[in-house]
Amino acid sequence: MIPDILAERYATESMKDIWSPKGKTKLERELWVALMKGQRDLGLGIPADAIAAYEKVIDEVNLASIAARERVTMHDVKARIEEFCDLAGHQHIHKGMTSRDLTENVEQLQILRSLREIRFKTAAALNRLATKARKFRGLVITARTHNVAAQITTFGKRLAMFGEELLIAARNLQYSLESYPARGLKGAVGTQLDQLNLFGGDAAKVRELEDRVASHLGMSKRLSNVGQVYPRSLYLQVVSVLDQIASAPSSFAKTLRLMAGHELAGEGFARGQVGSSAMPHKMNSRSCERINGFKTILNGHLTMASQLAGDQWNEGDVSCSVVRRVMLPGAFFAADGLLETFITVLDQMDVNPAVIDREHQHYLPFLLSTTIMMNAVKKGIGREIAHEVIKEHAVEAARSYRSGESPGNDLLDRLEKDERLGMSREELQSALVEGKANVGAVDTQIEHFLNESSEWVSSVPGAVEYKPGSIL
Amino acid sequence: MIPDILAERYATESMKDIWSPKGKTKLERELWVALMKGQRDLGLGIPADAIAAYEKVIDEVNLASIAARERVTMHDVKARIEEFCDLAGHQHIHKGMTSRDLTENVEQLQILRSLREIRFKTAAALNRLATKARKFRGLVITARTHNVAAQITTFGKRLAMFGEELLIAARNLQYSLESYPARGLKGAVGTQLDQLNLFGGDAAKVRELEDRVASHLGMSKRLSNVGQVYPRSLYLQVVSVLDQIASAPSSFAKTLRLMAGHELAGEGFARGQVGSSAMPHKMNSRSCERINGFKTILNGHLTMASQLAGDQWNEGDVSCSVVRRVMLPGAFFAADGLLETFITVLDQMDVNPAVIDREHQHYLPFLLSTTIMMNAVKKGIGREIAHEVIKEHAVEAARSYRSGESPGNDLLDRLEKDERLGMSREELQSALVEGKANVGAVDTQIEHFLNESSEWVSSVPGAVEYKPGSIL
Amino acid sequence: MIPDILAERYATESMKDIWSPKGKTKLERELWVALMKGQRDLGLGIPADAIAAYEKVIDEVNLASIAARERVTMHDVKARIEEFCDLAGHQHIHKGMTSRDLTENVEQLQILRSLREIRFKTAAALNRLATKARKFRGLVITARTHNVAAQITTFGKRLAMFGEELLIAARNLQYSLESYPARGLKGAVGTQLDQLNLFGGDAAKVRELEDRVASHLGMSKRLSNVGQVYPRSLYLQVVSVLDQIASAPSSFAKTLRLMAGHELAGEGFARGQVGSSAMPHKMNSRSCERINGFKTILNGHLTMASQLAGDQWNEGDVSCSVVRRVMLPGAFFAADGLLETFITVLDQMDVNPAVIDREHQHYLPFLLSTTIMMNAVKKGIGREIAHEVIKEHAVEAARSYRSGESPGNDLLDRLEKDERLGMSREELQSALVEGKANVGAVDTQIEHFLNESSEWVSSVPGAVEYKPGSIL
Amino acid sequence: MIPDILAERYATESMKDIWSPKGKTKLERELWVALMKGQRDLGLGIPADAIAAYEKVIDEVNLASIAARERVTMHDVKARIEEFCDLAGHQHIHKGMTSRDLTENVEQLQILRSLREIRFKTAAALNRLATKARKFRGLVITARTHNVAAQITTFGKRLAMFGEELLIAARNLQYSLESYPARGLKGAVGTQLDQLNLFGGDAAKVRELEDRVASHLGMSKRLSNVGQVYPRSLYLQVVSVLDQIASAPSSFAKTLRLMAGHELAGEGFARGQVGSSAMPHKMNSRSCERINGFKTILNGHLTMASQLAGDQWNEGDVSCSVVRRVMLPGAFFAADGLLETFITVLDQMDVNPAVIDREHQHYLPFLLSTTIMMNAVKKGIGREIAHEVIKEHAVEAARSYRSGESPGNDLLDRLEKDERLGMSREELQSALVEGKANVGAVDTQIEHFLNESSEWVSSVPGAVEYKPGSIL
Repeated sequence: MIPDILAERYATESMKDIWSPKGKTKLERELWVALMKGQRDLGLGIPADAIAAYEKVIDEVNLASIAARERVTMHDVKARIEEFCDLAGHQHIHKGMTSRDLTENVEQLQILRSLREIRFKTAAALNRLATKARKFRGLVITARTHNVAAQITTFGKRLAMFGEELLIAARNLQYSLESYPARGLKGAVGTQLDQLNLFGGDAAKVRELEDRVASHLGMSKRLSNVGQVYPRSLYLQVVSVLDQIASAPSSFAKTLRLMAGHELAGEGFARGQVGSSAMPHKMNSRSCERINGFKTILNGHLTMASQLAGDQWNEGDVSCSVVRRVMLPGAFFAADGLLETFITVLDQMDVNPAVIDREHQHYLPFLLSTTIMMNAVKKGIGREIAHEVIKEHAVEAARSYRSGESPGNDLLDRLEKDERLGMSREELQSALVEGKANVGAVDTQIEHFLNESSEWVSSVPGAVEYKPGSIL
Repeated sequence: MIPDILAERYATESMKDIWSPKGKTKLERELWVALMKGQRDLGLGIPADAIAAYEKVIDEVNLASIAARERVTMHDVKARIEEFCDLAGHQHIHKGMTSRDLTENVEQLQILRSLREIRFKTAAALNRLATKARKFRGLVITARTHNVAAQITTFGKRLAMFGEELLIAARNLQYSLESYPARGLKGAVGTQLDQLNLFGGDAAKVRELEDRVASHLGMSKRLSNVGQVYPRSLYLQVVSVLDQIASAPSSFAKTLRLMAGHELAGEGFARGQVGSSAMPHKMNSRSCERINGFKTILNGHLTMASQLAGDQWNEGDVSCSVVRRVMLPGAFFAADGLLETFITVLDQMDVNPAVIDREHQHYLPFLLSTTIMMNAVKKGIGREIAHEVIKEHAVEAARSYRSGESPGNDLLDRLEKDERLGMSREELQSALVEGKANVGAVDTQIEHFLNESSEWVSSVPGAVEYKPGSIL
Repeated sequence: MIPDILAERYATESMKDIWSPKGKTKLERELWVALMKGQRDLGLGIPADAIAAYEKVIDEVNLASIAARERVTMHDVKARIEEFCDLAGHQHIHKGMTSRDLTENVEQLQILRSLREIRFKTAAALNRLATKARKFRGLVITARTHNVAAQITTFGKRLAMFGEELLIAARNLQYSLESYPARGLKGAVGTQLDQLNLFGGDAAKVRELEDRVASHLGMSKRLSNVGQVYPRSLYLQVVSVLDQIASAPSSFAKTLRLMAGHELAGEGFARGQVGSSAMPHKMNSRSCERINGFKTILNGHLTMASQLAGDQWNEGDVSCSVVRRVMLPGAFFAADGLLETFITVLDQMDVNPAVIDREHQHYLPFLLSTTIMMNAVKKGIGREIAHEVIKEHAVEAARSYRSGESPGNDLLDRLEKDERLGMSREELQSALVEGKANVGAVDTQIEHFLNESSEWVSSVPGAVEYKPGSIL
Repeated sequence: MIPDILAERYATESMKDIWSPKGKTKLERELWVALMKGQRDLGLGIPADAIAAYEKVIDEVNLASIAARERVTMHDVKARIEEFCDLAGHQHIHKGMTSRDLTENVEQLQILRSLREIRFKTAAALNRLATKARKFRGLVITARTHNVAAQITTFGKRLAMFGEELLIAARNLQYSLESYPARGLKGAVGTQLDQLNLFGGDAAKVRELEDRVASHLGMSKRLSNVGQVYPRSLYLQVVSVLDQIASAPSSFAKTLRLMAGHELAGEGFARGQVGSSAMPHKMNSRSCERINGFKTILNGHLTMASQLAGDQWNEGDVSCSVVRRVMLPGAFFAADGLLETFITVLDQMDVNPAVIDREHQHYLPFLLSTTIMMNAVKKGIGREIAHEVIKEHAVEAARSYRSGESPGNDLLDRLEKDERLGMSREELQSALVEGKANVGAVDTQIEHFLNESSEWVSSVPGAVEYKPGSIL
């Protein structure tokens, strides 16, 4: 058998449990039991001990036996009904339900539980990111725009930047989770004809039944008007939220791959892993690359979701079916694997302050040329002249380094020698020292992120304590 | 000059105002003025009459003059600064700002105002949809799944189904609007160095300044940790919400195209439009087709947005720039044009009850075979036999009609003649009459939608009164 | 274990063989053997009986044993090398190769063989489509544009239209197959250092070796300049060709779903399948819907492929790895399943000439109003008057039918009664008879398609005889 | 008016000419004239001087006058017919044509001419790339995989790698160009009814007419079986080829952005451009970033194209219309702008051999540890010991540099001191010198690319001489 590669290589057990054939069968049985309870409460003659008998065997899932039944009945839902009934020794499930009442609601349950799983791991990731942002809040680095040195910042701030992006996504996920509506028991075209017949046309009872089933299953919102299927734009909402969750980790991963290219930082080695035998020093950012790969996969799933949305004909059909079978577990496995990998990288990441400082020394004279100019102005040199002199030498220092004439950045030497500026080496150097500490409002910013993320994370029990499994 | 086709053919004036070069220039000026007011309030020496002088000339946008300045300065932002200052006769704008502080915030303002515009038209569309759902709540139609007759429902319910999908999207849009965070005045790499310097390192003042500017501009949330750019996953969130808004109208449009194929309904003719001269009877669902086209365009923009998200290198760069220039106005114009077209179609739509009834008569015996069976059982015929007999004849009636043997659906004739069933024509006919009225819980469902949508629509002033312009 | 859903539910055995862990292992071994043969021919001391020993055990794939080795070596390629060597009792494989020389070339082999498989099934599908186009070449139907009646055509022409679209895609596939270039033995960064060292720096020998290996594997073209990976835009080319192959079947499937909605045709029942027990007459176009679903999946894979292309950093990395693992088998399984389903639908399809004729009778007076007008003009009535009269009545006839005033299309009655036109019932009726036969150049067009497709199909041995397996 | 941003900021004049309202009007007129010539040749009574009169005024395009006519006729094609006829003083165009015969064929002409334009610029780009590959064929650089140092290669080889990828795309483009089929004169639903009527039912003449028109327009292939529209999968083929063309330039641009981050190379300054006033040394890879942006836009257009393909209902409709209006010019403008930018970057690119050499010196001891080991083995040290010793020191040297203990890569110092290895500084150094020259088969590979690309480029007249305009 060809395994689902995302599930088997990358997803965690808790996510696989939701989407495995076994896990799905259990969810179906939970739904049936919830329905029986509701129907019994509302007056249908379903004995309590029958319900108890069903509940007892929920976990006894024998896929081979179900498959054997399907070969006889030629109908998958029927086969699963028979299996469950035979195990329980009763015949009370699936009353007034069509196949869609089963499969659509179970799929929604899978989505909802998966979203909770993703929220949990997002919280764990945010907590890790905050921890590292706090740890490195004062580690001054060369900020880069357009991939070249621009100004100074701290590594903690860089992490807080990605963290704040993740937090926005986390809140959007939270909104989608809380507002996610269940299709409920709507029958073949959405008119609830069969449940209504069961309850003698009492619409209030049917509504109450739906409420009870939904609350049994932990779904607080419910749809009223659906057709055969529930609105496909819900897939779009869910997959786009997953893709948004994946965005900040993906930008972080790209940035760490860039930093590794400069030896400023690296993703570290997992599990006694070493570099290749031919190149033992070589630390490849394989996990970060994988994070970027997961993001690309999610983008593909988003394309699928966007095409399902807005393509409903009348009360619906199953042209979405094969897409959902691929896209839904696929998107959740990818998001799950991405977060697991992200947390692992955050835990194992190496940061090399010495190399960071070397890079910094190289670029600092450029980055602080404005500070030098202002100091020159304070000493009485005209602003225009100071600007002209510094610009002239900055361009020349860059050219000279790149052409090989100078072995390093000699901007300070050049400025020291230029009498128009009249600044001593000490004066220049002190401008550097002064400027290097000047990372603007970075500390307040990081503090703000730490507070915000901590508040959100604390709403997700257990997230702080989460330990990822070992990844490939 | 090659015009932007989405803007010029399909978008409304209010949306074009936001994205036109003129409109953008005004937004920039509003931002500069808001900043000066904040800086003045917080102690910077900017005279009130200077601010007033700037405010007075906000609307005097002369693009040709700006372009002429740009040819001299070789810098677009500088050209616009000079123009505004010369108009006002002062030199107080853009203090402590980098170009990005201007352009990113203005872009966010454009997005925010566009989102409000889309919310407005979504509310108008929801109101129209609710009106039609109310009007047709009792018009019984043949519900279709897999594009073939399945059960009965009402046309109002079908509309409420799309309406409820739109309402979910509308609420998601509302969430995104309310939580949309402004980048604020963060400087070149996000450390706020320049504003801090301006206020002597007083971080609290800078924070206060940002709050004042944001509130001037009507943005309630603010980002703390950004780089050069604000998080690109915000584009993903915005474009995916637009795509979700487009979904229900798109499904409605496909369904109306299908109904037009059966002459059950049509999008109507606009503006004294007639069919082609060769085929005057021909009413093409051109507007509905266009709605579907807009949805496809949005799906393409979503692909772009999903690729920008997660592709930030360090503190950022402008590899997103050309994409944003295309994607942002493009997505808003498409969503705007889609809603305008959708409202127009809802207003002009033809519904043909006579044809709906003919279709219904044709399928009713099939749709109500269960009712017939139950009536037979009540009369004392065994359930299994009744089921077998009806199934046999149903399959045969379908085959016979399709093969041409029978000119119509002769199921009732067949059942009447079969002695195993023993039902008279009157008995059969009364099952039909009884069943035809049985559209399940449809009325309660529609009522629920009407209440929910009315509540949401009423939160958007003016939406109910909105009248679309004439579309192409 | 969670199975790959596309593989297990929809793909054919021949396609699964290529992508299964077992099949892939065999391809690796074939590559190693081809390499040894080449190296031996070119002077490396590899004994012929060693090669023979390896060849003998190619098919003895024991995945569990390989997995056990991997747990010890912590290296997947090393584990597979050891297993193969132990089975053969020799140590001669993988000389001068890096892991990438193995994995990239094997992946390309999988792609190439899969493309051949798709070509084969495309040829089988084209042949079926041609057969049906021939069968129905004279079956007159109402052509529809904008989903409403437009002119007349034949059902064979409609099929030929989709057939010609498929043929264009088939030729593009053929081009991609024939021009598909192998990466070859390029080493870790593409410089061929290791193979060169093995052959004492003799570049000609290394080139010859690559040629031999490529020809052993049936790849006629070869890349010269690659890095660690081969150009990712090749994925884009391959996946877009698959998506193009899927397009005509997808349009056919949508059209058949539409026709089923009018009972004009249907996809038929497979394997003694019946409609649902509640609605035995109901023939759902489930297979056609699935075809459309596969197309949506391929569109998602195309998004993934388009993002890999153009994202190579330096000599490459593995940020594409997880994407390829999902996208490549996924796209081939989807295309394979789509073609298998398409062939099945073509074989089982029902066409209902009687219903087609009824529809035709309804629309014919409209469709032939131009013919009627020309006949009127021949009789001496002014063109403008004739046009005006016919237009007036056509619009009125449509309105009258839709409003229920008239039970059918009464255009002829109206025209007959209008003295301005002065045409008798016989004259009007004869215009209809004459016009109905006038399907333009349809016959020549179909003939052209039959010839073209037959020529292409005949270049693919066995395609005409292909019988699909039974689908779900 | 809101301008099309891709056209106005980035596209070249020759591409804008094809898609401008003016250019499109001229193409329509060319088509009409070609048709008249064909019809006259085949016996229709169209006077030669009338045709000459039309030809004379082809370029007299007055958009305002056409717009005024449209406001009267309410029909865009009719307005353009009248304008052209009034200008020529005749009434002979558009005989036997429907609007679609005009618009579809003109769109195809636009596509075909745009593809030729793209081929031309692709050839120009390939030529530039080859020139640079030749220039830098011997410039040794540190090859990177996973963005970290891996082995050695040359910069010329790196360029040849991207060049070969572009060449594959160029050939695929060539294939698509040569096989691109014209829809021809097929009428409203594809049956050619109207042209057939015009030629008294003579199908051979109609076929001949189509051939003549197609050859007039430079289209060598023709479709036989179409509906209202031509196959939408042709859009998919075209847009995916454009996206493939964009891939190699995009990977090159990313790599140059990475190299700029290490100061190894840069995109150079255009038009007397300087860095920002605050940071005059700062050379941002803005053009390379823009290239990557164009690629993202094309990926979005590809999503649109993939959704149009496979979504034809019956003989077609215009749900693709608004998509085509956006996607077609958009994709061509983006590809055009990308190539123009790419050529400019290739022309202006700075390469800094001194910095390349510094990087190289830093990594060389690692990269050549295998060579050192082999030399040690030749001297008599056991392979296993040599491997162990070198690995131990390599890992330690990397750690020591990154931790700040060592200011540089001290691997050679460490090896020199280790008595187990017993190699002198001279011996170690000579291994480095020897190894540094060993870039494998790179020279032959580059030669191969130069020959192949030169052959292809020479098939496109004028491409070698092409000079890009100045870009923003």
